[in-house]
Amino acid sequence: MNVTIAQSTFERALSVASRAIPSRATLPTLTHVWLQAEPGRLKVAGTDLNLAIITWEEALVSEPGGITVPAKPLAEFIGALPDEPVHLRVHRETWTLQIVCGSYETAMKGLDPEEYPILPDIEGDGFALDPEDFRQAIDQVTFAAATDETRPILTGVLIRREEGAAGGATVLTMAAADGYRLSVKTLPALRAPEGAFSVIVPASTLEEVGRLLKGETEPVSMMALRGRNQVGFRLSRAVVLSQLIEGQFPDFQAIIPKRWETRVEISREALLKACKALSVFARETSNAVRLVITPGERDQLGQVLLQSRSPEKGETRVAMDALVEGNRLEIAFNVRFLMDVLEAIEGDRVAFEMTTPQSPVKVLPVGDPSFVHVVMPMFL
Amino acid sequence: MNVTIAQSTFERALSVASRAIPSRATLPTLTHVWLQAEPGRLKVAGTDLNLAIITWEEALVSEPGGITVPAKPLAEFIGALPDEPVHLRVHRETWTLQIVCGSYETAMKGLDPEEYPILPDIEGDGFALDPEDFRQAIDQVTFAAATDETRPILTGVLIRREEGAAGGATVLTMAAADGYRLSVKTLPALRAPEGAFSVIVPASTLEEVGRLLKGETEPVSMMALRGRNQVGFRLSRAVVLSQLIEGQFPDFQAIIPKRWETRVEISREALLKACKALSVFARETSNAVRLVITPGERDQLGQVLLQSRSPEKGETRVAMDALVEGNRLEIAFNVRFLMDVLEAIEGDRVAFEMTTPQSPVKVLPVGDPSFVHVVMPMFL
Repeated sequence: MNVTIAQSTFERALSVASRAIPSRATLPTLTHVWLQAEPGRLKVAGTDLNLAIITWEEALVSEPGGITVPAKPLAEFIGALPDEPVHLRVHRETWTLQIVCGSYETAMKGLDPEEYPILPDIEGDGFALDPEDFRQAIDQVTFAAATDETRPILTGVLIRREEGAAGGATVLTMAAADGYRLSVKTLPALRAPEGAFSVIVPASTLEEVGRLLKGETEPVSMMALRGRNQVGFRLSRAVVLSQLIEGQFPDFQAIIPKRWETRVEISREALLKACKALSVFARETSNAVRLVITPGERDQLGQVLLQSRSPEKGETRVAMDALVEGNRLEIAFNVRFLMDVLEAIEGDRVAFEMTTPQSPVKVLPVGDPSFVHVVMPMFL
Repeated sequence: MNVTIAQSTFERALSVASRAIPSRATLPTLTHVWLQAEPGRLKVAGTDLNLAIITWEEALVSEPGGITVPAKPLAEFIGALPDEPVHLRVHRETWTLQIVCGSYETAMKGLDPEEYPILPDIEGDGFALDPEDFRQAIDQVTFAAATDETRPILTGVLIRREEGAAGGATVLTMAAADGYRLSVKTLPALRAPEGAFSVIVPASTLEEVGRLLKGETEPVSMMALRGRNQVGFRLSRAVVLSQLIEGQFPDFQAIIPKRWETRVEISREALLKACKALSVFARETSNAVRLVITPGERDQLGQVLLQSRSPEKGETRVAMDALVEGNRLEIAFNVRFLMDVLEAIEGDRVAFEMTTPQSPVKVLPVGDPSFVHVVMPMFL
């Protein structure tokens, strides 16, 4: 291998691939980053065996070849170099990476890339998704996935093709649930292959994809890798490969309430701000915040009174104007769950559709039918 | 107490006083912030019994009085409120602080301020110091103080008046040392009281004073509080009180080398950048970086070659041009110590004055005679 690459470009590629590299691993080679020079570009890749990120940048390659080197010290060292061309050369007898940049000369110990896990190329077109729409869908869904591993299936996000969507357009549904809440988002595909599609992708993988999508302008390709139980995402400068979670995703449609007795429409931002303030007093009471929802007289606005109380610190309350339809209701929520969904959605106003203090509540961004959230109330 | 204060002003005052408040304490009252309304201003204070910070802001006070409340939740709650006037009122029967801001109404449990440690007013003029000069002196000296408590005296910074300085101007010397390195700074006083002055102030106290000095435009007053073994610093909107460290500060003048065999003058920024890059490879060898210093032939520039080597990762080296006088020398340093002093000083160029590979080294910012640093080399 003999490559010349700009310092800032190399630094960026290392930081992208490093997202998949564990800081400790049973196999030492997994803490390495794989550098592979191909005509015109340097490929930089990392994996923890569940997730792999392969990225590439333009480079002057006078001799193709590869090596793996410890990812963390390499990224830190390259980040400390001046912004000048970096010359990389591999000595295969000792698997040493020689790095020359300005007056810096470095020899870094590496390993034969043959010892590194095989990261397959992904072929075919798969589903094409708008990068900004997909990024937003990831933001709105993944936070509802479980973070503990007691039911592994709930740490994943279901992505499936909906059959027979109106107008012939292909629509994907994304869903995540942790037993207390559920997020469901529909997303049009710009292009779709033939056949059924249903996968459960680890939420952590999608978070990495979402991070890479920031600033992406080209459509993203998503495809199942048949026979390998993997999914792949191809962006303009990176590929993400991930193991799928096996099993049956819960029937989430059955959880979404079909009717309401009390409906509230309220400013999303003001409610989020109130939740943040009240959360300070809710810590000792399992984050409980009580809402007293009162419809307005005749044509007047109704009111939502939020209260939290700490046996140690005291209590706080805030009254907010809101459009209230239906019955008066007292209901309690985990304020962290409210904050999560209010931060994930966009738009000025949010609607809550409720029946009883013990029944699941539907949360909707007003004017955006592509997203629905369901959250369980707390016992008062 | 009955006070109205702007939300952002109150938030700022709480964050200043909170710097002195421990998050855990044997006396619960020490985790509280003390609020005291006086005509025209609200005083906000915190202390851990070693350090106290008292700050004040303009406020509309219709009834003076005070209370203490848990500092952390109060600061977090006030920070989450909208930027509107905050009304504070104390109910003395229950020692409850009522907080009203916009549509928020809060009752927070507090304590009688009589139970809070007495924070004395400081009187007199003391030494007047230019705020920017003093902030810089703190930056240049405190980092050399010890952080472990094996020799408590070394966790302090000596501040003493120099007798008989030239021109009749009063000069203060500040010094800190941790057994491996020493920083000494001289600082003119804008105004000085009569008599001798020599105190050892905890480095952590001076770091807080330095933080408060950012953006300060008025001269700072520094005074020893006789009979209380304390020192006080008065800024335009805050007072810092601190216990002094008792004991005899080492005779640091004896440590400063008087002559050299090898002198190097080099770009401070380029050397700092090189140290950062080399430090990646120096971690497994106690941060050792080796310098090979070679004088130039005739009128040519000399060279400093820096090297670090890790048995695991490999090795790196960088050659830098430098003005070298005297003998060729090989010497090793703890690269963190080099980085600390290079970051603390200002100016384009730095000088190193050395005798042997085992003798203390003098580090000087070229063109600034007010500062000198001494650092022990490492054994090669």
